[in-house]
Amino acid sequence: MFRTHTCGELRSADIHKEITLAGWVQTVRKFGSITFVDLRDRYGITQLLFSETLNEQLEANPLGREFVLQATGTVSERSNKNPNIPTGDIELTILSFTILNKSAVPPFAIQDDTDGGDELRMKYRYLDLRRNVVKKNLELRYAVGRSTRNYLHENGFMDIETPFLIKSTPEGARDFVVPSRMNAGQFYALPQSPQTFKQLLMVSGYDRYYQIVKCFRDEDLRADRQPEFTQIDCEMCFVEQEDILNMFEGLVKRIFKDVKNIDYSATVERMTWENAMWTYGNDKPDIRFDIKLANLKFPAHTYPAQQDVSSLISGVDFKVFDEAETVIALAAPGCSEYTRKQTDELTEWVKRPQVGMKGLVFIKCNTDGSFKSSVDKFYNEEKLKAIAAATQAKAGDLILIVAGAEERTRKAASDLRMYMGTTLGLRKADEYKLLWVLDFPLFEYAEEDNRWVARHHPFTSPKPADMDTMINNNPVIDNAAAYLKHPYANIKANAYDMVLNGNEIGGGSIRIFQRELQQKMFAALGMDEAEQQHKFGFLLGAFEYGAPPHGGIAFGFDRLCSILGGSESIRDFIAFPKNNSGRDVMIDAPSTIDDKQFEELQIKLDLKA
Amino acid sequence: MFRTHTCGELRSADIHKEITLAGWVQTVRKFGSITFVDLRDRYGITQLLFSETLNEQLEANPLGREFVLQATGTVSERSNKNPNIPTGDIELTILSFTILNKSAVPPFAIQDDTDGGDELRMKYRYLDLRRNVVKKNLELRYAVGRSTRNYLHENGFMDIETPFLIKSTPEGARDFVVPSRMNAGQFYALPQSPQTFKQLLMVSGYDRYYQIVKCFRDEDLRADRQPEFTQIDCEMCFVEQEDILNMFEGLVKRIFKDVKNIDYSATVERMTWENAMWTYGNDKPDIRFDIKLANLKFPAHTYPAQQDVSSLISGVDFKVFDEAETVIALAAPGCSEYTRKQTDELTEWVKRPQVGMKGLVFIKCNTDGSFKSSVDKFYNEEKLKAIAAATQAKAGDLILIVAGAEERTRKAASDLRMYMGTTLGLRKADEYKLLWVLDFPLFEYAEEDNRWVARHHPFTSPKPADMDTMINNNPVIDNAAAYLKHPYANIKANAYDMVLNGNEIGGGSIRIFQRELQQKMFAALGMDEAEQQHKFGFLLGAFEYGAPPHGGIAFGFDRLCSILGGSESIRDFIAFPKNNSGRDVMIDAPSTIDDKQFEELQIKLDLKA
Repeated sequence: MFRTHTCGELRSADIHKEITLAGWVQTVRKFGSITFVDLRDRYGITQLLFSETLNEQLEANPLGREFVLQATGTVSERSNKNPNIPTGDIELTILSFTILNKSAVPPFAIQDDTDGGDELRMKYRYLDLRRNVVKKNLELRYAVGRSTRNYLHENGFMDIETPFLIKSTPEGARDFVVPSRMNAGQFYALPQSPQTFKQLLMVSGYDRYYQIVKCFRDEDLRADRQPEFTQIDCEMCFVEQEDILNMFEGLVKRIFKDVKNIDYSATVERMTWENAMWTYGNDKPDIRFDIKLANLKFPAHTYPAQQDVSSLISGVDFKVFDEAETVIALAAPGCSEYTRKQTDELTEWVKRPQVGMKGLVFIKCNTDGSFKSSVDKFYNEEKLKAIAAATQAKAGDLILIVAGAEERTRKAASDLRMYMGTTLGLRKADEYKLLWVLDFPLFEYAEEDNRWVARHHPFTSPKPADMDTMINNNPVIDNAAAYLKHPYANIKANAYDMVLNGNEIGGGSIRIFQRELQQKMFAALGMDEAEQQHKFGFLLGAFEYGAPPHGGIAFGFDRLCSILGGSESIRDFIAFPKNNSGRDVMIDAPSTIDDKQFEELQIKLDLKA
Repeated sequence: MFRTHTCGELRSADIHKEITLAGWVQTVRKFGSITFVDLRDRYGITQLLFSETLNEQLEANPLGREFVLQATGTVSERSNKNPNIPTGDIELTILSFTILNKSAVPPFAIQDDTDGGDELRMKYRYLDLRRNVVKKNLELRYAVGRSTRNYLHENGFMDIETPFLIKSTPEGARDFVVPSRMNAGQFYALPQSPQTFKQLLMVSGYDRYYQIVKCFRDEDLRADRQPEFTQIDCEMCFVEQEDILNMFEGLVKRIFKDVKNIDYSATVERMTWENAMWTYGNDKPDIRFDIKLANLKFPAHTYPAQQDVSSLISGVDFKVFDEAETVIALAAPGCSEYTRKQTDELTEWVKRPQVGMKGLVFIKCNTDGSFKSSVDKFYNEEKLKAIAAATQAKAGDLILIVAGAEERTRKAASDLRMYMGTTLGLRKADEYKLLWVLDFPLFEYAEEDNRWVARHHPFTSPKPADMDTMINNNPVIDNAAAYLKHPYANIKANAYDMVLNGNEIGGGSIRIFQRELQQKMFAALGMDEAEQQHKFGFLLGAFEYGAPPHGGIAFGFDRLCSILGGSESIRDFIAFPKNNSGRDVMIDAPSTIDDKQFEELQIKLDLKA
């Protein structure tokens, strides 16, 4: 061993001991005839004191930043204590030292506020990983993983490894494929998730399975997506939705406790997908703050159970609202005194292409009880008051209204809500609010193919009440324009997403376990018998031999860690991430391969001109 | 929840309780008007009693093997107790039941001694996994993994995930490659191990890293090799060989305790590679039994430090020995009275092509002190006695002698030793003996390229004493025939293998951490500067910025589990293994991919005629 202690553990009680440390030179400071060195390792920093007697040796072996140093000395009390670090009471008076390895000058400073840009830090990721902020992220990731394993172990789950070299069955995302040399002309695929394998494990009777496992999707990478990512993947059998919700609320609460020392004792809220869309404009609402949408106008088919209040805004010949499919308002608390400049900025914000609204209507709910709007020539005080009542605005609030086509307008209202939440400081970094979103639509309509696609995935079961609708109707859509009238359009999935502070951190479903129902699902997705057999014959086969009722969930491990770590970027929580082009710029991958490799795999390039 | 209890937990104390079970029908037995069903789940088997009142319902819904059944009833004392199962004191008198799913008749019996052949069981692996023997294996695997994680956690190791989509740098085994769509014409490779990444983590200061991780090698599959396999992968910095040996002896001892309840308190033996080859004929000796090789004749360069005793067998004009490069004897204890038939069988055994000897010489050390050999016309009693003394044979032993070319003869002697160990019952299934093998050669000679290859891998450091030899000599081999005289031929690696009962379960080394030494190694392997930079530029770069001394080890997780489970086959310990052609016959992978996938990846097939 090159050391007797680490750089984080020496305290006053160790004074007078002779010890040896090894680590990296953080700083070198010379004061007259003595030299101070901050020595760093994974555990902390310890100050080393080189007295005059070592000057000759230091001159012959000058120390530089990031040099690897082994130093033996006596623990001494520091005259100038540093209360900011745990070892701040002591220093090591050096008796002898050895430079174990030198270092070139690093391309950026190894400290929390580094001067290195993103690209440079990725190229020298091995140096970036030395920074304390990055280390804390990986430590948090490890703690989340450990907490997860402990909780699941205590609840009878077994970690069972599923294969990485599987079969390409693209449905939704693209597969990464792996040419097989031993079976020339054929390919493996890397798993997008262990979905079918974990279901087979349920068929095999391993009633509580989990895995923290890499998954792969060959998609164009939006910011903060990675071609390889990690899932906490779980499945149970002989359970219903309620059992899964309870089990995995428990998991997340346990992680909060173990990792953040937070007692999350509150009941986890639940909300249907329709309610989430209606009230928050998206299916992963941030419920840390109370701004809700007021739906002044909307297409009846979209929220069939909701009350139509469009008379509030109609009849005054305001074309913007009259011609809009959807009109949504929200009340920004305490903003009634926004200046013209501030409201103009908000208007500009919603007109940006990412939001895509044509404009923004304002109603100021003045503290004196009066109203003032940007549409005063259409709406009198009484009407404004009625609209304000519908939005549940209070005196002092500023009502913001967007109008346009349903989907875009709802998203804009949701974005605006989040923006106001951020602007007004309502999204508190140290507050965590969990939410289950339930009862998603089972199917979505795919216009290009005039068929259904599975919103979650093709193994998700309908809600028990919708089972007969699914079985007893032909999934083929006769009249494309009227697809909304097809009974399948209203089937709800027995699926659930867990949302944390506006981020989907996990999602799952009760699965189909009946062969006929699974075939009905495949048929709805446009797969004929031959394709079903080719892609999923093993699963259909397994369902013939006593498949139990089962369901599960998967958490995005990278995302969960980044939220718990208070970061927007999952990349900060992955030791060796890839950039937006799917490249590892440190090792320079992907890269070319040898002719011999092409020859052995019996493939060649077919590059487009 | 579909059940209140599992099929393994009910005891006499539960009698009179009303409970619900769910599981699979193992057997159905009808006795007169009542029906007994054994219901099985992951936790055990419970007997269900269906009384006459349920007969009508049973006739309408007949139960079959592997049906999924939910049954509610009252726990009752069994008249006919079964002491062989934990639930044997009770049975469940059924009040109501529901068939949750039916099952076709399984293609083989779901029991320990199944009638299913290997291929059939692999195709229906989801049924094979239901068998108790297979379940026990996966449970053992989970327990080994859990024990490993706990031990390493308690010792300050961090689980850090390394990437799966990396760069192809074939050196030794073939890489599996993954075409990149976003970087057309380029490929990722799947890792053969996280070797360079874990070394970078050491450079980054994460001084104790581990991962239980999938690795990939595209090799022709010998029996019991898998294209994807799992490693317990570990690395430490600021350590020397001794530290690693101690830490990982501790790991394996902890696994013995946690998984097998064995207190392995004995010191783990250590042996140099040369000694292992000399004494046991191979580098992973099974030291559970004491038969050792006696080297009567051998090439001087192979074991330079060993005493030449060839005069014992020379000078009598026995051509078989005189013309052989190597003559090796071993004494089989208590076999002096082997019959002619038995010795003939041994001769046939060594003449099989897998062993490849021309014959076997016998010396019987009779219990009366006399000797009788198959070469009496060459060796008189006195000479036989001297040979027997050299082999440390005792009265009653049978000395077996093989002769021929060094490598083949040594392997044959080793095989013969293992065969006799097995035959004589000396390899006890319930005995475990660990062994460290140390000081491997750093280089092997690759005749086809007339250059060195790294015996372990190119990142292994030479022993400290051989450092100067490595640095100060030109690795180029001038005279191919005299490669043994090159100073590199005698350099020892700072490497270690852990051997358990004759199987290598883990191996590792202290790594090179100096850029110049690493470049010297690459050069020795025939890589010029450009190739070094292309393949390992990132590592050489990292070594410029303060790389600490470090080393590590990797255990073959599948193998370790199979040995602890008492099986020869790692496949029995993998949930979804592949066959010898690298195929998953259950999902039928690898398989063809779509034209669209080829087009997007910009590759095409180039099949040999």
